[in-house]
Amino acid sequence: MTTVALVGTGLIGASLGLALRRRGVDVRGFDADSACLARAQERGAVDVAAASLAQVMAGAEVAFVAVPVSAVAETVGVALRAGVAAVSDVGSVKAAVVRSVEDRTPVPEPVRFVGGHPMAGSDQDGVEGADADLFAGATWVLTPTSRTDTGAFTVIRELVATTGAEVVAVDPDLHDALVAIVSHLPHLMAATLMQVATEASPNRDTLFRLAAGGFRSMTRTSHQAPGIWPDIFVENREAIVAALDQYVDALARARDLVAGATRGPLLEFFEHARAQGRHLPTRSVASGPLVELAMPVPDRPGVLAEVTTLAGGYGVNIVDLEISHGADGGLLVMVVPAAGSDPIVDGLESLGYRVARRML
Amino acid sequence: MTTVALVGTGLIGASLGLALRRRGVDVRGFDADSACLARAQERGAVDVAAASLAQVMAGAEVAFVAVPVSAVAETVGVALRAGVAAVSDVGSVKAAVVRSVEDRTPVPEPVRFVGGHPMAGSDQDGVEGADADLFAGATWVLTPTSRTDTGAFTVIRELVATTGAEVVAVDPDLHDALVAIVSHLPHLMAATLMQVATEASPNRDTLFRLAAGGFRSMTRTSHQAPGIWPDIFVENREAIVAALDQYVDALARARDLVAGATRGPLLEFFEHARAQGRHLPTRSVASGPLVELAMPVPDRPGVLAEVTTLAGGYGVNIVDLEISHGADGGLLVMVVPAAGSDPIVDGLESLGYRVARRML
Repeated sequence: MTTVALVGTGLIGASLGLALRRRGVDVRGFDADSACLARAQERGAVDVAAASLAQVMAGAEVAFVAVPVSAVAETVGVALRAGVAAVSDVGSVKAAVVRSVEDRTPVPEPVRFVGGHPMAGSDQDGVEGADADLFAGATWVLTPTSRTDTGAFTVIRELVATTGAEVVAVDPDLHDALVAIVSHLPHLMAATLMQVATEASPNRDTLFRLAAGGFRSMTRTSHQAPGIWPDIFVENREAIVAALDQYVDALARARDLVAGATRGPLLEFFEHARAQGRHLPTRSVASGPLVELAMPVPDRPGVLAEVTTLAGGYGVNIVDLEISHGADGGLLVMVVPAAGSDPIVDGLESLGYRVARRML
Repeated sequence: MTTVALVGTGLIGASLGLALRRRGVDVRGFDADSACLARAQERGAVDVAAASLAQVMAGAEVAFVAVPVSAVAETVGVALRAGVAAVSDVGSVKAAVVRSVEDRTPVPEPVRFVGGHPMAGSDQDGVEGADADLFAGATWVLTPTSRTDTGAFTVIRELVATTGAEVVAVDPDLHDALVAIVSHLPHLMAATLMQVATEASPNRDTLFRLAAGGFRSMTRTSHQAPGIWPDIFVENREAIVAALDQYVDALARARDLVAGATRGPLLEFFEHARAQGRHLPTRSVASGPLVELAMPVPDRPGVLAEVTTLAGGYGVNIVDLEISHGADGGLLVMVVPAAGSDPIVDGLESLGYRVARRML
């Protein structure tokens, strides 16, 4: 039975605790807010409530750090120094945290930390919103680098998969650029629209009476508790500003279409957006046939990040992953959905891997 | 039994037909697309399918025009010339249509047309998406002006209310400014975000895998069939461009907060948006005690618009409205929700009306 140290028992941490305990994992929890920790234990999210960070790490094989973004790197450092074999986090920004962990001295190589980010949330904040099914069918990003320990990645991937999440491996910088577009920019858009709506009009009550589904869905994320967002926006400000600038440029082009009263190009503009939206996957893409890709790999940690993020670059989740080490190197076996696996095999072969493919 | 001519049997028209027929109204339908009309009849949205616009108007007491925005004014003109006593439409833009109808010569005064706009929609397009309950609890805007016939307004308001919609009276120009913010701008935002997401990144598939609830709700309206939107954007382009400019200004201020890494102001910004969102009404605000406001009124059409849009200016729906005409002027009786009725009474009294208030 795996023993997991869970630091931070808010919405994500407590949901992870519930999901892991359901699969028989021994979860020891700690939270700087003792009331939050007590409540997490009452709700069954942790087996044992530890009295300190040091205590929760003692004897743990795995640690999940679910604290605010600004506190992740330091907490991960504590876990690594305590000798925990596999450490991950759940923060919304990855590059700075990964770099901070990897550059902290002394950090044993390969690094037993892999960044993580479950793409799931709830309108209900904190431990009270915790739900063992929060991650079912959701994408859980892991961000291995060339310095990531293979064993640590494998252990974290497997535990994450037990929550029902689908694991996608993405380079930390690419992750930050993508979430700036799909998460942080939308959050800013929602709050800004709400600001314009309420400040631009002397008739807020009338305006709100006229607000139907469109306005409601566009401002929905602004109803979330704002506590975690300033940290996220500060940590990922470069990528967010870049995304925002692209968005404002695109808005300026859209403005020209409207001001110019150009029906044809306006129709094309809306049709293009609609056509793209058809590629949004339904919540789970794990169903359907799977394929096993087996390949001999040299015994160096960079291989793991190279192979897994190549799959992640096509949006493909890693259904299973094993690496065995033999006398003459290792064998990496990765299971991915068969649909869309062709470009991954092509990509791996162009990198020099010899891939044996077997339908499951 | 009222006989209604229904022109246009798409999503809104057919839903209105279903809702009216359920209340025993005789609905005669016409649509330039005869297949659409036949389907509407099959689905029970019209009693009789007319062969022409002239035929559907013959003998009708009321006409609802549910055709694309660019065709509304002309169709309304046909209804008025055919002698229909009360005419309304369901278009998303109002000022241009109202002006066009009122300035068409010869138009008998007072004008037997009142603009309308149900704030309801569906992800399913056309007659197949029609639903008798589409308007239940939704806001249905009517836009009376100083030239609107009181009787026509009263008849339209009553029929609209039978659909379960809540009627809010708003000046046509104010309506256009408000929907530019709560409907048209969000629609543009959604399509633009989708464009940025898919053009800015070489990793669309990965990006979409990372897209959780926020991105999905922000782009939801871009999945709608775009057919009606170019017309709407062209008709309301001035208000939309104004709203867009306000929004871009607000985005520039938000950008400064992000680029400057100012945690405190960022938190305030998100907290402000969240606090404003708490004022968004739940879908129906009609429940709760009602109050009847009775006031003697002079016998001129402008009174109706003045009194009803004053209530609409506070976002208040008109639950009931009757105007009786006596020897020495008329008596207007309006029923509104008691909550929030104080400023309406104050407003009416400051305009010189003597208001008798009675709780219902």
